[in-house]
Amino acid sequence: MKANIRTNGMPRVVIAGAGLGGLRLAMELRGRGFQVVAVDRNNYSQFSPLIYQVASAGLEPSSISFPLRRLFQGCRDCLFRMAEVRGVDPGAKVLLTSVGPIGYDYLVLAMGGETNFFGQAGIEREALPMKTVEDAMVLRNRILLALERAQTEEDPQKRERYLNFVIVGGGPSGVEIAGALAEMKKDVVPRDYPDLAGRMHIHLLNSGPRLLKSMDPASSARAEKDLLKMGVHVHNGWRVTDCRNGVVSAGGGTLESATVIWVSGIRAVPVEGLPPGALGRGGRILTDRCCRVRGLEDVFAIGDQSLVLGDPEWKDGHPQLAQAALQQASLLARNLERKEKGGAMQPFVYRNLGTMATIGRKRAVAEIGRMKFGGLPAWTLWLVVHLRPILGVKNKFFVLLNWIWNYFTYAQSLRLILRPRPRPLEEPQEGKPRGGEAAPGGQA
Amino acid sequence: MKANIRTNGMPRVVIAGAGLGGLRLAMELRGRGFQVVAVDRNNYSQFSPLIYQVASAGLEPSSISFPLRRLFQGCRDCLFRMAEVRGVDPGAKVLLTSVGPIGYDYLVLAMGGETNFFGQAGIEREALPMKTVEDAMVLRNRILLALERAQTEEDPQKRERYLNFVIVGGGPSGVEIAGALAEMKKDVVPRDYPDLAGRMHIHLLNSGPRLLKSMDPASSARAEKDLLKMGVHVHNGWRVTDCRNGVVSAGGGTLESATVIWVSGIRAVPVEGLPPGALGRGGRILTDRCCRVRGLEDVFAIGDQSLVLGDPEWKDGHPQLAQAALQQASLLARNLERKEKGGAMQPFVYRNLGTMATIGRKRAVAEIGRMKFGGLPAWTLWLVVHLRPILGVKNKFFVLLNWIWNYFTYAQSLRLILRPRPRPLEEPQEGKPRGGEAAPGGQA
Repeated sequence: MKANIRTNGMPRVVIAGAGLGGLRLAMELRGRGFQVVAVDRNNYSQFSPLIYQVASAGLEPSSISFPLRRLFQGCRDCLFRMAEVRGVDPGAKVLLTSVGPIGYDYLVLAMGGETNFFGQAGIEREALPMKTVEDAMVLRNRILLALERAQTEEDPQKRERYLNFVIVGGGPSGVEIAGALAEMKKDVVPRDYPDLAGRMHIHLLNSGPRLLKSMDPASSARAEKDLLKMGVHVHNGWRVTDCRNGVVSAGGGTLESATVIWVSGIRAVPVEGLPPGALGRGGRILTDRCCRVRGLEDVFAIGDQSLVLGDPEWKDGHPQLAQAALQQASLLARNLERKEKGGAMQPFVYRNLGTMATIGRKRAVAEIGRMKFGGLPAWTLWLVVHLRPILGVKNKFFVLLNWIWNYFTYAQSLRLILRPRPRPLEEPQEGKPRGGEAAPGGQA
Repeated sequence: MKANIRTNGMPRVVIAGAGLGGLRLAMELRGRGFQVVAVDRNNYSQFSPLIYQVASAGLEPSSISFPLRRLFQGCRDCLFRMAEVRGVDPGAKVLLTSVGPIGYDYLVLAMGGETNFFGQAGIEREALPMKTVEDAMVLRNRILLALERAQTEEDPQKRERYLNFVIVGGGPSGVEIAGALAEMKKDVVPRDYPDLAGRMHIHLLNSGPRLLKSMDPASSARAEKDLLKMGVHVHNGWRVTDCRNGVVSAGGGTLESATVIWVSGIRAVPVEGLPPGALGRGGRILTDRCCRVRGLEDVFAIGDQSLVLGDPEWKDGHPQLAQAALQQASLLARNLERKEKGGAMQPFVYRNLGTMATIGRKRAVAEIGRMKFGGLPAWTLWLVVHLRPILGVKNKFFVLLNWIWNYFTYAQSLRLILRPRPRPLEEPQEGKPRGGEAAPGGQA
């Protein structure tokens, strides 16, 4: 594909990563005179805010995953390549991938974030991340399996370990999965495992002094109060230092658990080949206010992978939230069009639409402008805000149906331990005799 | 659990395997004065006839998998144990499992069948089975991944290999998955992979002279005609002898393919500890007409795992179909009750409700008594017959919705390559220091 740049006179925009930001960019570039090549390691785009509901058996993986090829069907001049990104060669204007180099006129890095274990091998080996749909599928299995094991384990100490669920990280993901597990404890365990009723424990470990530190202290207090009411043990000021053989060591003490969920940090997905000095805090790629990567001409970065410098209101960069990625994508689509027409690009101005976190049934916290509220109004708003961006009529409908179903039955209904044994598609060896292949249609 | 037999004076029935037969038996024993312990390696029961639709991305795994604990919630005196069956000790009246021995008064073996590779290592290593929901999830990934690889592969021979799909086995499963792939080829590939349109090939290899050998020759001919119309290459008389490095060798020739689907045979799941002479053709456990295992007093076997001797109409045993398993389960529930009351058990009489196979959109074949028909009436009947036994209102509704959706959009919509990296729940090592565990609720 290297030689094809400016096919039919159209500049080619290569987008590395088809998450919320990359996908929005691809969609907004339609009809603006660009050829778009989107590259992602998966053949689907996932809707991150609902991943915890897949982990807690409330939603199907497919309900929050959208096949990219289907999304691109309506888009002439849009190509999708399922590939791993290996690096960038800005001199040759090429993105290096597992399916070969892809030449670009403009490159946009939008690969998002990944779980940060902060280099702690024990944690990486034992704790379970919750960043991707695939993580969530593994987590669901592990949560259900721990309950099954607890049911048949006769050694009380081991049983207790299976019944202890430790969540590390006091941000929205930690609060959300803690709340979902608390509902499982209350509504599902007594019915599915009568012997275990009241013996499951959920511990939320938070390194800072309060949960949801990016929100107002009033919201933090409300979230903590709700979680405590739901029976979650909230441990503030516990910084986890190790996890080994089922024992979590933290500043405040130790806990034994067979299921340690790690939602304590993300870092930007690393990319090889960027100039020195292009990376900032958390591995985020530093850009100017037009999302252009520091030191490069035609390479941009948006979303969780990037950090926009120069916004006086957001000196440490904008928050790594869906809305920032989406706003940057929309601006960049317009900016690339402006640039092609010889105009000047506009700087990014973040519009804070508000933040929210759900805790459980009719429990959530929300902040919109100066309004801070919780309970049923926040929870209802959360549902609406998170149903709207789900792509596709069918997915919206299925998510809504699952929510309604779970609401009325008080149960996460997808309590299945599915463990497909992966069989990778391997390259057949070369130089084998072929011959004798049936002529297609020969017998028709 | 060994000492608990005849708890409260109730005899304990241990059911090994909670497939269609085992589950039906558990349900029908409710209220008849038994304690029931169901043992299965999965925490769900799967509805086998629709597994091929999971493989072809038309249905979700969860739509045809029913969490066993939820099914047992309504059943006092019913227990479920998620465990692998290791064997039987009829002398001690104990079922040996991965969670320890389980004593029984009556034992029912209902573990069904598993894929039979006939001891051919090459086939077992390379070909993909389609017997379980987990198999189907792997298969779906592999089918979609082959198309992705074909899209980026530049070597024409390798690309062809990715575009060749070989199905080995001319029974209902082979016909059904061939038809589903043919619809994917016709409706999905041209839209998702315009470059590959018309270049995908589906080969159905059948060792016998006609497809669907258990049905009438007229149905076989109709199925073959339908498949040929849909562009499937049907190779009758091709017995596969090997599969190595992507090359399938068969009696009639060889084919190169990266995706070889093996639906060519099943054998009964083996169990250790049965008396010599208790096994028949295909490893099936031989029973008398009351499903009692040959040579044992209180051990029964039903469904695909068993072979009932002595029915003059079915000298080679009854067909390994859902209806036989369900009928045997219902009879056995009544027979166990009769036995406990001192009465005589009744012999099994198979009631053939008909056989059918679906081929594609508005294409199917059905035989009910002497009636043989195909096309839209058979297809509609197939849908009704297969929707009815799906357990749970929600699952029925979701399957129906998916079918309606796929019917009107001409697309299997769940085209997701989801590859969770399994992280087994391992037993934490013993003898580790505990101490310092937070008191539950200590901070509340």
